[in-house]
Amino acid sequence: MDSLVDLLIVGAGPAGLMLALWASKFNMRTRIIDEKNGRVSTGHADALHSRTLEIFHSFGIVQDFMSRAYHINEICSWNPDPSNGEEIRRTQRVVAQPSHLSRFPQSSLSQGTTEQILESGIRSEGKVEVERNTVPITLRLEEKEGYPILVTLRKIGENESARTTNTSSRKDDEIIRAKYLVGCDGSHSWVRDQVNMPMEGQRTDTHFGVMDIIPLTNFPDIRKSSVIHSKNGSVMTVPRENRLVRLYVQLGETAQGSRLVNPKDVTPEMILTYAQRIFKPYQLDFRVCDWHSVYTVGQRLAPRFDYKNRIFLAGDAVHTHSPTLGQGMNVSMQDTFNLGWKLGSVITGVASPKILSTYNDERHHVAKTLIDLDKEMTGFYSNGPSKESEDYQSFRDCFSRFLSGVAISYGPNALIADRSEQGLTEEVRLGQRLPSHKVVCNAEGNLVHLSDFFPSNGAWRILIFAGDVGSQSQFDIVQKIGASLEKFVNQFSSFNNPIIEVFLIHAGTRDFNILDLHPVYHPWNDKLGWDYWKVFSDDVGDFEPCRSPYEMYGVDKQRGCMVVLRPDQHVSFIGPLADFDNIQRFLSNVLIFRRE
Amino acid sequence: MDSLVDLLIVGAGPAGLMLALWASKFNMRTRIIDEKNGRVSTGHADALHSRTLEIFHSFGIVQDFMSRAYHINEICSWNPDPSNGEEIRRTQRVVAQPSHLSRFPQSSLSQGTTEQILESGIRSEGKVEVERNTVPITLRLEEKEGYPILVTLRKIGENESARTTNTSSRKDDEIIRAKYLVGCDGSHSWVRDQVNMPMEGQRTDTHFGVMDIIPLTNFPDIRKSSVIHSKNGSVMTVPRENRLVRLYVQLGETAQGSRLVNPKDVTPEMILTYAQRIFKPYQLDFRVCDWHSVYTVGQRLAPRFDYKNRIFLAGDAVHTHSPTLGQGMNVSMQDTFNLGWKLGSVITGVASPKILSTYNDERHHVAKTLIDLDKEMTGFYSNGPSKESEDYQSFRDCFSRFLSGVAISYGPNALIADRSEQGLTEEVRLGQRLPSHKVVCNAEGNLVHLSDFFPSNGAWRILIFAGDVGSQSQFDIVQKIGASLEKFVNQFSSFNNPIIEVFLIHAGTRDFNILDLHPVYHPWNDKLGWDYWKVFSDDVGDFEPCRSPYEMYGVDKQRGCMVVLRPDQHVSFIGPLADFDNIQRFLSNVLIFRRE
Repeated sequence: MDSLVDLLIVGAGPAGLMLALWASKFNMRTRIIDEKNGRVSTGHADALHSRTLEIFHSFGIVQDFMSRAYHINEICSWNPDPSNGEEIRRTQRVVAQPSHLSRFPQSSLSQGTTEQILESGIRSEGKVEVERNTVPITLRLEEKEGYPILVTLRKIGENESARTTNTSSRKDDEIIRAKYLVGCDGSHSWVRDQVNMPMEGQRTDTHFGVMDIIPLTNFPDIRKSSVIHSKNGSVMTVPRENRLVRLYVQLGETAQGSRLVNPKDVTPEMILTYAQRIFKPYQLDFRVCDWHSVYTVGQRLAPRFDYKNRIFLAGDAVHTHSPTLGQGMNVSMQDTFNLGWKLGSVITGVASPKILSTYNDERHHVAKTLIDLDKEMTGFYSNGPSKESEDYQSFRDCFSRFLSGVAISYGPNALIADRSEQGLTEEVRLGQRLPSHKVVCNAEGNLVHLSDFFPSNGAWRILIFAGDVGSQSQFDIVQKIGASLEKFVNQFSSFNNPIIEVFLIHAGTRDFNILDLHPVYHPWNDKLGWDYWKVFSDDVGDFEPCRSPYEMYGVDKQRGCMVVLRPDQHVSFIGPLADFDNIQRFLSNVLIFRRE
Repeated sequence: MDSLVDLLIVGAGPAGLMLALWASKFNMRTRIIDEKNGRVSTGHADALHSRTLEIFHSFGIVQDFMSRAYHINEICSWNPDPSNGEEIRRTQRVVAQPSHLSRFPQSSLSQGTTEQILESGIRSEGKVEVERNTVPITLRLEEKEGYPILVTLRKIGENESARTTNTSSRKDDEIIRAKYLVGCDGSHSWVRDQVNMPMEGQRTDTHFGVMDIIPLTNFPDIRKSSVIHSKNGSVMTVPRENRLVRLYVQLGETAQGSRLVNPKDVTPEMILTYAQRIFKPYQLDFRVCDWHSVYTVGQRLAPRFDYKNRIFLAGDAVHTHSPTLGQGMNVSMQDTFNLGWKLGSVITGVASPKILSTYNDERHHVAKTLIDLDKEMTGFYSNGPSKESEDYQSFRDCFSRFLSGVAISYGPNALIADRSEQGLTEEVRLGQRLPSHKVVCNAEGNLVHLSDFFPSNGAWRILIFAGDVGSQSQFDIVQKIGASLEKFVNQFSSFNNPIIEVFLIHAGTRDFNILDLHPVYHPWNDKLGWDYWKVFSDDVGDFEPCRSPYEMYGVDKQRGCMVVLRPDQHVSFIGPLADFDNIQRFLSNVLIFRRE
């Protein structure tokens, strides 16, 4: 008997683990395998950008990151001292990103810790378990419905890998049939090879040394992220947890220019020597080096991220670039965050399989943008002091929104409406993730973040920005919408299986009883009573000196509007309060009626 | 061979677990035993007040509480409707406590979850393990130094208890010798009996029913804490996690008055019937009742909390009262939070044993105050509608600081100076815990809470409020203090074993290099480099519209001051910047010079 699974994930790095989190939420039959024996222990990726932390929050695991990571607030820019070109002096202190961009700041934490927190998150769901020392040996996609993917799995020994193991069958090999397969198996992806997907692009001859050290130094900004351009090369520093600081040090080029580098020969001491020249007049040394590596700048991209919408590729398997922007791990996890709920919705029969093609459309475009930016940024570091390096603030302003991950925009496509009513909401942007702002929970009288109520559980959300429901005319409109909403929502969704959730955010006082509203805004259950966590007020001024959510979202308090969020918190649809028909039409095109 | 331990804790409820946390931090040889098979699963205490959450934060475990607990912001007061005395109407909405009181709000969470989080905290330290189904059989205090306490321990079966097990010796009984013993074994304390400590005070005949239900109701404030006085009795409601709401319902009195109650007969349905009469005109029902109980109002207090400064008692073992104030579990944990660092400091040779007598002085006084307040509060509920119930705001204002736990004040005694320089710091009060306010970490340029740097690890802290170190004269004073401090601190403390930590909080710009300050403000280690987490600035305005820490603490920016904190964050000493001699004299009287 072959075993049947909904989803097979090859690779348990950050991208694979993020997908396994989604799989746990959708309760899909899922296997996740990894060639290696355990998680990475030191080094590797360490940047966690705002959107990534928002995603962790949506899975209920962000606190572990927040309490362990270093939060980057200020970035210092250093350039050659005009009075002594061999030395550096601080030219600017730059705020890393405006605080309204996200509730979570840019942070840094070792990849091993990140993987460990993700894996604990998966373990606490109790649905999926990572199988290590396990590789796929053969892969075949058959032309049929159901479980068209046939894979042979093998437990390997310590000295074997997917590429070295003998492909002739062994008696312990296991054959499984899967509905979908996702390759999260890194830049040397075995899955990508099986579908004959070539990478496009190339490596350069520019090398950077990377090391995680506890610095012994009198450099005054060592506990701030610093961007250093000197006549002797460039360094970027990123402080970390446990007194560590990561240094990216420009080493020079292979077989050209004045300094020759053979990546295999690079030691921490060698990276230190380069760094010491750049840090002058400051001293730099270390006794503790946690990890070091060398990378060769290069940008490569796969032409597609899927194969016949049955086999998908994510992360390093389809895009590689320099670590200069600290984006690799973030974009990789965001790939599978994008893919996971789509697979889950299709597999559980909630959504039409046609939505799967949006994965390639949405994420290939992001990877292409990233690779273009990476070329610009590696130039910024390797070209030496420049006008940009002297005015780092202006340079950074151009890309900080993209880097934070919150400016990523999708569509129009099957999941993002093409008819934009963008004028209704200046700060809620079609295709982008909804920013979270503080609101007051009407029933509990507490200041809360709106995103606390949008966990990643596969549900769509309709947000009714209802205006001032204290006015009778507005209240009547809201009740009328309630009646239409209830009829529509109940076709897909139930109390125990909420495929569509309705939220009401009003701009009036919260001195009214939410039970007077239509029950769609506070659903009833015979055992659990009313749902008190669907109605929010914008009178945050009672609690904190902060701008109201209507101001933050740029919604007019008279006119209001309706916003539809996908399960990944991206905005699918924006429309006027009256225009419920278009929402119905849009969602009916994506979701499948409940069969009961 | 008898086994030797520094500390034996009898009872693994909240008080015992809190003590075990301290024991883990001090790495004392500790055993903690509990008669029961496991933790409480439902019901029992559920209030967590601000100071308790601050204490959890100091042990690094507050996030689990914050993310699971319900946060009480508003309290609603209900009284008889003047137009229809049989029905109730809302008379006030009251803010539970001013936000500046503490960084953590009043919260509620089931006792079982609280115990579970405490136990995980202990387990993650890896030093102490709770031994269940284990009771003490005999206890003897010998007149000698070293390990004067002799206890026989026994593993008991399911149907045995400390009181029912046969005291004749069995072959598996274990004899241990302990330096100190703490009885956290509840209101029927076996340890208290062994030292012949009678409780003083008595029970009344007033009964309250308590139940945790998921309410089915149209009462509009069911998700806010409500204080309800009706002509048919009183109810207090406290919302909780997982849709639960706790109700305290006045049942009547035994053998007098119109309603007779036999506590043994009380069912959830009976409590509901009483509640329904009080809630009129609103409906109330439930299908889910998580837990219920009945309590008889009474206040009892032991005359002392210690026996010869070798055996200590804490929590319900020495004070019991009604649950009306939600104080029992909080004050119990605060008992052992007070005791733990004192025992730890004495056992590890850091402090003189004479400090142990402050435990009884400090905590007996708190328990006495609580019991007086409890009498007042049970009257408030059982006496029916009154002037106080109509103006709940004014009534609550009288005791909300005490209830939050932040107003608890100790001394003067061996650990709290008697010479107060209170004028230097309007909002830092001698004997009280230091409130935490936001500051800027000079080296990292991040907004942080000062208390993040005061973990419960046994260290004393000297806080130098240095004023504007940008002025040369102020800078010179700070450097001079630095030299004296270094000489003094090094007599007790080292980089790896910091018995005294020095922090500098300045009121100038953070545009200077902290490495220019005396090294006592950024201690050096050959492997770990400089310590960057000791110098803070008050220019929080760069980050948030909030008042600066100098304003919040009421410290003059010109004059500055010095504050000494005990390991439990209570203020031991306040003095002017120049007056270092008095700090030396005070601390030398408590701490023991390092022997190396």
